[in-house]
Amino acid sequence: MNTAEIITVGDELLIGQTVDTNSAWMGMQLSMTGIRVNRITSVSDRREEIINALNEALGRVQLVLMTGGLGPTSDDITKETLAEYFGTRLVTDPEVLAEITDRITRRNLEMNDNNRRQALVPECCRVLANHGGTAPGMLFEKDGKLVISMPGVPSEMKMIMQEHVLPMVSEMTRGRTIIHRNVMTYGTFEAKLAERLEGFEKELPASVKLAYLPAHGVIKLRLTGTGDNGPEVRRTVEEQVVKLYGIIPDVIYGEDEVTLEETVGKLLSVRNLTLATAESCTGGKIASLITSVPGSSGWFIGSVVAYSNSIKTGLLGVDPGTIRRYGAVSEECVREMAEGVLRLSGAEYAIAVTGIAGPDGGTPEKPVGTVWIAVASESGVIAERHRFADDRMINISRSAYTALNMLRKQIISS
Amino acid sequence: MNTAEIITVGDELLIGQTVDTNSAWMGMQLSMTGIRVNRITSVSDRREEIINALNEALGRVQLVLMTGGLGPTSDDITKETLAEYFGTRLVTDPEVLAEITDRITRRNLEMNDNNRRQALVPECCRVLANHGGTAPGMLFEKDGKLVISMPGVPSEMKMIMQEHVLPMVSEMTRGRTIIHRNVMTYGTFEAKLAERLEGFEKELPASVKLAYLPAHGVIKLRLTGTGDNGPEVRRTVEEQVVKLYGIIPDVIYGEDEVTLEETVGKLLSVRNLTLATAESCTGGKIASLITSVPGSSGWFIGSVVAYSNSIKTGLLGVDPGTIRRYGAVSEECVREMAEGVLRLSGAEYAIAVTGIAGPDGGTPEKPVGTVWIAVASESGVIAERHRFADDRMINISRSAYTALNMLRKQIISS
Repeated sequence: MNTAEIITVGDELLIGQTVDTNSAWMGMQLSMTGIRVNRITSVSDRREEIINALNEALGRVQLVLMTGGLGPTSDDITKETLAEYFGTRLVTDPEVLAEITDRITRRNLEMNDNNRRQALVPECCRVLANHGGTAPGMLFEKDGKLVISMPGVPSEMKMIMQEHVLPMVSEMTRGRTIIHRNVMTYGTFEAKLAERLEGFEKELPASVKLAYLPAHGVIKLRLTGTGDNGPEVRRTVEEQVVKLYGIIPDVIYGEDEVTLEETVGKLLSVRNLTLATAESCTGGKIASLITSVPGSSGWFIGSVVAYSNSIKTGLLGVDPGTIRRYGAVSEECVREMAEGVLRLSGAEYAIAVTGIAGPDGGTPEKPVGTVWIAVASESGVIAERHRFADDRMINISRSAYTALNMLRKQIISS
Repeated sequence: MNTAEIITVGDELLIGQTVDTNSAWMGMQLSMTGIRVNRITSVSDRREEIINALNEALGRVQLVLMTGGLGPTSDDITKETLAEYFGTRLVTDPEVLAEITDRITRRNLEMNDNNRRQALVPECCRVLANHGGTAPGMLFEKDGKLVISMPGVPSEMKMIMQEHVLPMVSEMTRGRTIIHRNVMTYGTFEAKLAERLEGFEKELPASVKLAYLPAHGVIKLRLTGTGDNGPEVRRTVEEQVVKLYGIIPDVIYGEDEVTLEETVGKLLSVRNLTLATAESCTGGKIASLITSVPGSSGWFIGSVVAYSNSIKTGLLGVDPGTIRRYGAVSEECVREMAEGVLRLSGAEYAIAVTGIAGPDGGTPEKPVGTVWIAVASESGVIAERHRFADDRMINISRSAYTALNMLRKQIISS
């Protein structure tokens, strides 16, 4: 059972109102456990379409993962169709009903027929509990083949995959070892990184593959080792990880899916230090990234989102003369912002950002994408000017991550 | 020829290294010209897979759009496979060769064999010029059926679609109309909404379909009307939209993909009003959502992310006695936070949020997911207690959107 297919169900996928991100995520997870995805098929919420796709997929492979069409509304017919396909009826699952009831009553709402319908499952399936929503996952077995149906909401699908499906399929592919190791980098470009790693790539053992996975400025280097001898595969991959640290020590910030905000959080908390931010063009993005990390209240004091100049001067104490003379997007202003929030918060470190995210507000001297970033501590302020992109969302995200990376470098060098 | 299928080719799609955004874009464009997409299939860069997928699709529909596998490297085999499939050979197209030569020499590069190979096309196809890259689009006709192959680079695919494919298919579907209208709702659950719309759904004309598309608490209601008489289809769909406003006026916040933050921004800017936020458990998420809207500097003053109590008392002016007596997650505290940031910022409206996002910090009386939200203006403060989920990211996101929705209701009711 080393190949699988994915079927995603929903009219919204076919008319392009929703981009199917589920199958890419599932494809990546499956391939990491050693399962090759043979085909991805998206079909509409129609009985015959779902049945045809399922029949065809089961004619090619023994494992089919499905998402979508499990909502409580009448356009969602996957569950009924699966019951019909596997020649069974829908029955109420008491555990699912209890979980839904709990979920609804905790919100002080009343259970209605639609909620109760969500607890109906095909009698022959094994229920895969969904702790993120009301539609459970369902596992069907027939003639030694497996069909797994999951909700289309990405967060719920991921929870069910991680809790139930991936452990199960890893079990099925035992014997063969596939090891993935990720080395996380920030502060360079893919083409530049590829140039620096040209020799490394040429010398890679045949059993190890390297992939570049860029996202939001972070480039994840994924090393995948394959073989029948587990310990040997593991050792070979580890050797390559060590080699990478020798070649590009300046851009590696962590390993295995760790984010920059988690890395910064760990650096601060082990040193018992705290952080505050003063954000103009990032508009709270840095604070929002930081507070997405559980436990961040231990090392994050807070932020002043100084979107208007009145907050920069009134709250952060930036000299109005500084803004008049140099503008709000200037080294002078970002330094005063960083010092201001350091003073206000009593934190050991402060980040400040001011820039032009766009689409408007650019000038010939300060075009859209111009961003000043400062990191302040009792030992002084360091400020950098950056020029990112023409796109507002990219500018906000790059500014935030670049600021976190500056802070990271500051902490480890002091 | 009112139905089509899409085939996307590439190993990177199946292992999840690339999310297939092409088919969503093509699906939307096709459905706007009145073509229903029956199925989307993603296959690997393997000859048999491509041929099987093509055979199957042409067994169901008369128009197949393909993307991917047209690059210059050895793993790209779509062109050779199509030549074989249509029983023809590859020949150099002089116009394509001229365009590639021009493109290469403009960059001061030398033509190599890879470049020249890009000018080879199956002899029987009609070339669809690609002004964005070196791989041309190709149109094949066989037994009255059409196959169109385009490069997988989204910008190049889009250029070829807009210049060649969409004008051609509009011509073919003349006379048939498909209309999509979205009504955006917030503040209810899918099951609850379905209950309220049960009668509406039963009375829907046969030519109109309703779909529920939930994401992050927002539920998008999509109405799709189909028919031969354009003005009549449009009128029928509009009548249903008007009917929706009559049934669920309390939860509709906008139409057609608009976000809650954009809606709030429009409400504020037409009234010439400004906003500030004081955020504890949302950690800057509300400010970050707001400042993702271009032009938000016109109506957003800023935010105090009061993650630690010292910022709540020192900066926002919350009475330390309030926190001692009632805790930081309390109605009293959220009210003082809202009043504090209203005063500090000089804005007309303020939002404040304090709660327990989790995973830690819950107590029996205030479990994880307990969140207080307040909206303040000169006419007073309104505060609400909510109980969201057990998941940190869901709690942060629900708190942020619920706060924006409370503000929206406040503005329109005053």
